[in-house]
Amino acid sequence: MPNYEGSLDAVFQALADPTRRDMVERLIRGPLSVSKLAQPLEMSLPAVMQHLQVLEACGLVRSEKVGRVRTCHIEPAGLRTAEGWIGRQRTEWEHRLDRLGEHLSQERGPSGQGSAEQGSTS
Amino acid sequence: MPNYEGSLDAVFQALADPTRRDMVERLIRGPLSVSKLAQPLEMSLPAVMQHLQVLEACGLVRSEKVGRVRTCHIEPAGLRTAEGWIGRQRTEWEHRLDRLGEHLSQERGPSGQGSAEQGSTS
Repeated sequence: MPNYEGSLDAVFQALADPTRRDMVERLIRGPLSVSKLAQPLEMSLPAVMQHLQVLEACGLVRSEKVGRVRTCHIEPAGLRTAEGWIGRQRTEWEHRLDRLGEHLSQERGPSGQGSAEQGSTS
Repeated sequence: MPNYEGSLDAVFQALADPTRRDMVERLIRGPLSVSKLAQPLEMSLPAVMQHLQVLEACGLVRSEKVGRVRTCHIEPAGLRTAEGWIGRQRTEWEHRLDRLGEHLSQERGPSGQGSAEQGSTS
C-alpha cells in the first residue's frame, strides 16, 4: 500500500481530469465493461485504457478480465481518502469560525455589550 | 468565473501536490504572510510563489499586499467545489447500496427470513 500522502497525490491527480471523473461517475452507478465505459467517450480505446490505468493505479477503480471481457468496478475506499482530507479541512475551518465567534462574544462581554461600552458598567 | 468542470480540474490539480495541501492546511487555521507560509518549506521563495499562484488561480487562496507584506487567506468556497463533487459520488454510491439491499430483501421475501432458515420457525 502506498503511503498516505502519495495516495492523496495520486487520487487528486486522477480526479483532475474530466474524462476520468466521468468514468468514476458512471462506475459509481454500477460495473461496466471497458467497451461500455469507452462508448460515450470521443477518444481512442488506447486513450481510454490509459485513463483507466491512472484510475486503477490510485485505487479508485479495479478491473477484472473474464474471458475476453474486462469489467471495471469502483473502489469507494479511494474516494474516501480524498473525502477524508477535504472533510478534515472543513472541520478545521469550522473550529476556526467557532473560535472567532467565542473571541467576539468575549470581547462583547457576557451582557452582549460592545467593547466601546466597557467600563461604563464596572 | 471559470466553468464548473474547469474549476474542478484546477482545484483537484492544485490539491494533487503535498506542498500545496500543506499550505492549505496551514491557511485554514488563519491568514499568513508569504514569508511565514514559506518558512517551514524547504524550497526557494520563487518556488513557493509558484505554488501560491496555482492555489490563487483555482480559487483556493487569495492574497493581498499591504505595504511590503503580502498576506494569504483561505477561500473555503474553493474546497467546497471539490467536496461537493466527491459528496455527490458518495450519495450515488449509497443509493446503489440501498437499491442492492432492497433487491436482496425482495429476493428473500417480506418476512425477511433467509432461504436456508425457511421453515425452521413456522
